Amino acid sequence: MKKIGILGASGSVGTQALNVIRSSETLELEFFSVHSSVDKAKAIIDEFHPAYCIITNKDVYSSFNGVYSNTTICYKDDLEKVIQENKVDMVLNSVTGIFGLLYTHMLVKNKVDVALANKESLVSYGREIMRLSKKNNVSILPVDSELSAIWQSLNGEDISKVKRISLTASGGAFRDLTREQIVHKKASEALKHPNWSMGAKITIDSATLINKGFEMIETAMLFDLPIEKMEPVIHRESYVHSAVHFIDGSVIAQIGQPSMELPIEYALLRKNRVARDRDFSFAAIAKMHFSEVDNETFYGINLARLAYRKGDTYPAVFNAANDAAVYLYLRDKIAFYDIEEIIRSEFDKHHGIVNARIDDIVAIQQEVYNKIKERY
Amino acid sequence: MKKIGILGASGSVGTQALNVIRSSETLELEFFSVHSSVDKAKAIIDEFHPAYCIITNKDVYSSFNGVYSNTTICYKDDLEKVIQENKVDMVLNSVTGIFGLLYTHMLVKNKVDVALANKESLVSYGREIMRLSKKNNVSILPVDSELSAIWQSLNGEDISKVKRISLTASGGAFRDLTREQIVHKKASEALKHPNWSMGAKITIDSATLINKGFEMIETAMLFDLPIEKMEPVIHRESYVHSAVHFIDGSVIAQIGQPSMELPIEYALLRKNRVARDRDFSFAAIAKMHFSEVDNETFYGINLARLAYRKGDTYPAVFNAANDAAVYLYLRDKIAFYDIEEIIRSEFDKHHGIVNARIDDIVAIQQEVYNKIKERY
Repeated sequence: MKKIGILGASGSVGTQALNVIRSSETLELEFFSVHSSVDKAKAIIDEFHPAYCIITNKDVYSSFNGVYSNTTICYKDDLEKVIQENKVDMVLNSVTGIFGLLYTHMLVKNKVDVALANKESLVSYGREIMRLSKKNNVSILPVDSELSAIWQSLNGEDISKVKRISLTASGGAFRDLTREQIVHKKASEALKHPNWSMGAKITIDSATLINKGFEMIETAMLFDLPIEKMEPVIHRESYVHSAVHFIDGSVIAQIGQPSMELPIEYALLRKNRVARDRDFSFAAIAKMHFSEVDNETFYGINLARLAYRKGDTYPAVFNAANDAAVYLYLRDKIAFYDIEEIIRSEFDKHHGIVNARIDDIVAIQQEVYNKIKERY
Repeated sequence: MKKIGILGASGSVGTQALNVIRSSETLELEFFSVHSSVDKAKAIIDEFHPAYCIITNKDVYSSFNGVYSNTTICYKDDLEKVIQENKVDMVLNSVTGIFGLLYTHMLVKNKVDVALANKESLVSYGREIMRLSKKNNVSILPVDSELSAIWQSLNGEDISKVKRISLTASGGAFRDLTREQIVHKKASEALKHPNWSMGAKITIDSATLINKGFEMIETAMLFDLPIEKMEPVIHRESYVHSAVHFIDGSVIAQIGQPSMELPIEYALLRKNRVARDRDFSFAAIAKMHFSEVDNETFYGINLARLAYRKGDTYPAVFNAANDAAVYLYLRDKIAFYDIEEIIRSEFDKHHGIVNARIDDIVAIQQEVYNKIKERY
């Protein structure tokens, strides 16, 4: 049995990772973390009997600690010790935001393989995380659907033969509109995602296509490919999860029903495919549509390219500025295209730090985020 | 430099294989064969300076032999000796019909890797060709677009994890018609292929979908997968060249502009991808359509399954009976659905030979073919 840790077990990725463990014959839960949901923690303990449960909210930990049903309840500061004293095969990190980056950094430092669902790890500090993971011989296994598709399409292939990558995007709520039509759109309209319902933040990132910009940076970092090779393409039906174009003109694509569970499972099982009831039929889906991304209407794509090219701490600024701008847009304090403007003006103001330490990244993200929020 | 032999150098596959060698920095032509075209042979010799040129037509050989521009001109009976005395890296076999099978058999016996474009080799005698190639540690590298797509999609994957294979088909001239609408269609209408122009025989095989039946058998043989896993699917635009469905629900597909040259090159270069100007853009193609194959309207698919399941010499009967029936249909001597009926009735009459020798296959194919032709 392979021992797995799950950070962020109560979120949607964490919940589906627990489904994967539940239906796996080779995985067992060694530890998990939740922020504050004691009820969920107890249910997970009762079902999976892990050795440790980590609570990241201090107040909640104060009232739920000690031992529950043979599981040791720890505070988040104990996590590094738990990892050092207990050999796990892999840790799924689905904690969002800068805290997730801190976990990834700590895991890689401790030579633990990471199934990565946290965006900041590769967007805000990707070069250093990848440098450290290579140095420590640590695997970073993508959990995101598009990144997993690229990973699967690269199976048995030579990465030096990659010409470019088609990163597919549903296109978000405004995919059929022009800049003029979008300019006055409120958050309530941006939140109507055409394909599925997700959290508010990610749905706005989908409407601006900045989510695709993040994936462009993550793909570039993870596979050590220049961002010029990343090409977002609108694919309304979200069946082609992404595709790799090779220099000989051949394209390998990973296709399937939209599913978060498949890429989670694929990462946790280290590419081992197991029989599951997730059938895909070309005849049943009947049609696929593809179209170009208009880089002027969705300028966030270009901002992602710019952040990557400027390098240093600019991708962290990109991420934090977008976080704050989306926060403001969701509260109707700014207009849709102010999101772009805010990011752009933060780039102008920022002075990149070469060889930034993780503390620098945390400080920059917090400073940028707070300054933008205070302005409105 | 790797030395390549091309059997059938004046056909369309052979011509494109010469293009591949022309633009390759690692391949050189050691020998080639043509049936009777001395002009083409001379042009190939003048450009590629191979050691040998093989002429398969005896009369033509009588008037074109000896040495031409340092190239030794041989008759087809000399081929085995040429192969035994000259080490080649691979031979592309694009000779059609039963003669192509004889070449494949001879090459595999002589432990020469084969880039295979001849259909009969795997359809009529696939089990023995594959058994012998495994025994002799010989690689059979597919050149057909669909088979190459499956081969590429299996890169780095575990074949035991294959759930099924979507073999894409353009659908031929009658893809949108019902059995009632097709029943009186003449060959002249069947020859109007919706996507491209090919030889008459293959265009009729495309209209009956029996070409897809052949590929189902070839795929089953080449990858040692049961025919139950092969599922033809109509894909009008022919961009998805085929796809492999894995047990976890993930699908890997090979996509690209329709091109014979790419799979030929991929085989000749043993999966090495080289930079070529064959770009594919999802946004530019905009749409893909897929639909089920109606097994009742295109019953040839079921006949392929039946031939494979009956095994022994039945696939050879399937191939020869179809050859003769298409010959008759092209001359308006039989109706469209008589092709199916003729194959079916040959199955009823045939007594399969267990462990057939290659001479048995040749004899059966000729006997079936001639008997059918004589009847009309």
